[in-house]
Amino acid sequence: MHFQVSQNEFLKALNTVARAASTNTPMPSLCGIKIEALENTLILLASDSNISIKVTLNGKDEKNKLDVYEEGVCVIDSRYIVDIARKIASETITMEVIDGNWIKIEGGTSRFKLNGIPEEDYPDINFSIAKQSFTFKTKILNDIVEQTSFACSDKETRPALTGVNLEAKNQKLYANATDSYRLASKIIDLQEDLSFNITIPAKHLIEVHRSLIGEDEVTIAIDNQKIAFMFGNTIIETRLIEDSYPDTSRLVPASFEQVLKIEANSVLKAIDRSSFIKSDGKNVIKMTISPDEMIVSSSSQEIGSSLDSVKVLEYSGNPLTIACSGKYLSDAIKALRTDVIVMRFNGELKPLIITKVDDDSILQLISPVRSYN
Amino acid sequence: MHFQVSQNEFLKALNTVARAASTNTPMPSLCGIKIEALENTLILLASDSNISIKVTLNGKDEKNKLDVYEEGVCVIDSRYIVDIARKIASETITMEVIDGNWIKIEGGTSRFKLNGIPEEDYPDINFSIAKQSFTFKTKILNDIVEQTSFACSDKETRPALTGVNLEAKNQKLYANATDSYRLASKIIDLQEDLSFNITIPAKHLIEVHRSLIGEDEVTIAIDNQKIAFMFGNTIIETRLIEDSYPDTSRLVPASFEQVLKIEANSVLKAIDRSSFIKSDGKNVIKMTISPDEMIVSSSSQEIGSSLDSVKVLEYSGNPLTIACSGKYLSDAIKALRTDVIVMRFNGELKPLIITKVDDDSILQLISPVRSYN
Repeated sequence: MHFQVSQNEFLKALNTVARAASTNTPMPSLCGIKIEALENTLILLASDSNISIKVTLNGKDEKNKLDVYEEGVCVIDSRYIVDIARKIASETITMEVIDGNWIKIEGGTSRFKLNGIPEEDYPDINFSIAKQSFTFKTKILNDIVEQTSFACSDKETRPALTGVNLEAKNQKLYANATDSYRLASKIIDLQEDLSFNITIPAKHLIEVHRSLIGEDEVTIAIDNQKIAFMFGNTIIETRLIEDSYPDTSRLVPASFEQVLKIEANSVLKAIDRSSFIKSDGKNVIKMTISPDEMIVSSSSQEIGSSLDSVKVLEYSGNPLTIACSGKYLSDAIKALRTDVIVMRFNGELKPLIITKVDDDSILQLISPVRSYN
Repeated sequence: MHFQVSQNEFLKALNTVARAASTNTPMPSLCGIKIEALENTLILLASDSNISIKVTLNGKDEKNKLDVYEEGVCVIDSRYIVDIARKIASETITMEVIDGNWIKIEGGTSRFKLNGIPEEDYPDINFSIAKQSFTFKTKILNDIVEQTSFACSDKETRPALTGVNLEAKNQKLYANATDSYRLASKIIDLQEDLSFNITIPAKHLIEVHRSLIGEDEVTIAIDNQKIAFMFGNTIIETRLIEDSYPDTSRLVPASFEQVLKIEANSVLKAIDRSSFIKSDGKNVIKMTISPDEMIVSSSSQEIGSSLDSVKVLEYSGNPLTIACSGKYLSDAIKALRTDVIVMRFNGELKPLIITKVDDDSILQLISPVRSYN
C-alpha cells in the first residue's frame, strides 16, 4: 500500500470514521481504522461491531489530491493516525506499508513510522446495502434525534427502550422514545408510502446526527437487522434492536381534566432555580396551579426549600397540585422549541402531556411522582 | 441578620470568596461561606484553612445597593448560595436569618429557605495584617505565576518544592520554581529595598492569580507564616511553606559548550506532533543538533517513531544529541513568550538552559534523560 492524499480531506474522513472506532474493547483491532487503497480510490472504515462507518475518497475528485502508487490495506490505531493527520503541516500526506506491519507516514518536515495492527486481526465488516431505500431531508432526521432521543432509557434491562422506535405507515412516520417514566413522540408526514417498524439504538442515532452536519439529504436503507445512512462520501451502518417495541399510543389519554397555557421560558427558569434542591440525588418539582399563577416549588430535608411564581396565560379545570422530575420536565419543554406550551392533566396521579399550541405533531408525556411535602 | 444587596455585586463577591471554600473536607462547615452584616457593611468570608478570602461590600458604595436592616451572621453552603445568586432574576437580593438556623433568600419571583450551617461550627479565621507591606503592579505577580509556577512539584514528599520561592534582596526579586527535574527562574527589578525569603504554595498562588483579573495593583503583606494579597474590596490570605527552599542558583552553569538559536514555534510544533509517542506514559524528545537543522525525534517500542526537522538559526559547538521530557521542554518554551529562543548545553548529560535572546531575566532549566534509542 502506498498513496498520497490531501491532508484536509484525509483528516475529515478520519474524523468521520473515528466516531465508530472503539476506545475500549476486548478486541484491540477494533480501535483501528482500516485503510484500503484501490485503483484511484481510498476507503476508510471503522467499526465497534455495533456501528460501522465507511468513507470513500475518490481520485476523480480533484480536492482529494489522491494518487495511489500501490494498492493495499493497512489497519492503524485511530487515535494516532487522527493526531498525525491533524498536526502534519503539509497540503498532502503520504502513507506506505513497509517491512510487513510498519506504516510510514510523511508530510512537510515530519515523518512517522508506526506499528500497524495486523490486517488479518480485523473483522470482516460487511456493508451490504438493502434493496429498499428512501431519501430524507437531513432536517427531519435531526429533529427526530433532538426532540425524542433524550427520553430513551440508559439502562440495558429492557433493550428496546434504549432505542428510538420509527414506524412508517399510512404516509406517516411515528418516532417514539420512552424510558417508561416519560415519552417523547413525534409524527412526520411522508411523501412516499413507506412501511417499516424499527428501533435504532439512541447512542448510534446520535452519532449519525453528529456526522450529518452540513449535509442536506440522507439516504436510508433498512434490512431486518441493520440500517444504513448514506450521505456524501459516507455510509454509517448500525444494528437494529430486535426486541419488540411497546405500544406507546395507549399511554396518551384522549381527554383531560385540566389544561394550562404558559410561557415555556418562565417555567424553564423556575425549574432551573430550584434544580440544586435534591433528595437522594433527584430534584422533584411540585407545581401548584390556579388560574392566576403556577407555583413551582421544591424541597429537601437536608438542603431546604425553594418557591417560584410563574404567570399563567390560560387555565381551565380545578386547581391542581402535581409533582414530577425537574429534569424530565425541563428536557420535555426544551424539546418542544416553542415560546408557549400547553400542559394537559388528569389530576395529580395521571401522566401529564406537554405540546405546542395548535400543533400535535410533537408530544411529551411525563409520569408524576408522589410528593409528601 | 437581615439585609438587601445588589444581585450583581453580591454574586461577584460570592464567586470570589467561593474559590477558598472547601468542596471536600473533614470539617463540613468549611464548605460554607460566612456572611456577616454589620452597620452599613457586608463581609463575606470563606476558607479551607490553608487559603482564606474575604470580600467587604461597603454600603457607602452606591452600586452595592446595601441596606442592613438587622446586624448578624450566618454560614451557608457555598454551592447553594452561589447558584441562587446567579439564577435569581432581580436587581437586589434580600437575606434574613429566621427560626435560628434557617436562612430566607428572596429576589424577583423566587423565594428560598435554606438550612444554614451553625455559626459556632465555623472556625475563627484571623485576618491579621502584618505591619510591613508593599504594592506591586498586578502584571508582575501575574508574570511570576504564569512563567514559573508550572515547574513546581505536585508531590508532597518535599513540601518546599510545591511552592514558588520569592526572595527579595538588593532591590531585586528572585522567583524560583523547581520540581528537582526542571527549574523556572525569573528576576524582577524592584523600586523599593525589600528583604524577605518566602515560599508560597503554587496552587494558592494560582487562585490569587485568577482573582486578580481586572485589577491594576495588589498590596502584599508578609509575616512569618502567612502572606496576604489585598486589592479592591478583597483580601486573600494563604499560609507559607515553612520548609527551607533549596539554593537553586548553583544549578545554572556559568559557561556552555553548545549554544543554539532557534524559532520557538517550530520547536513547539515538532514536540506537539510527536507527543502521542509515549513509553510508560511519558513522551521523551530526542534532539539531534547540527549547524543546519535540529532533528526532533521520539520513539516507543509499542507505538513506533516520529521525526521532524527544524531549521537552526545559529549554532556554535560540536554536534549534539540530547533527550528530555517533551512536556517539560514545551512548558519551558511557552513560558518564555518569545519568537526566538536560545538553548545552551554542556553535552548530553548536563542540564540544558533556555532563555530569550539578550534577556536573562527569565531562565528555564531542564535535566536531560538518557535515551537508548
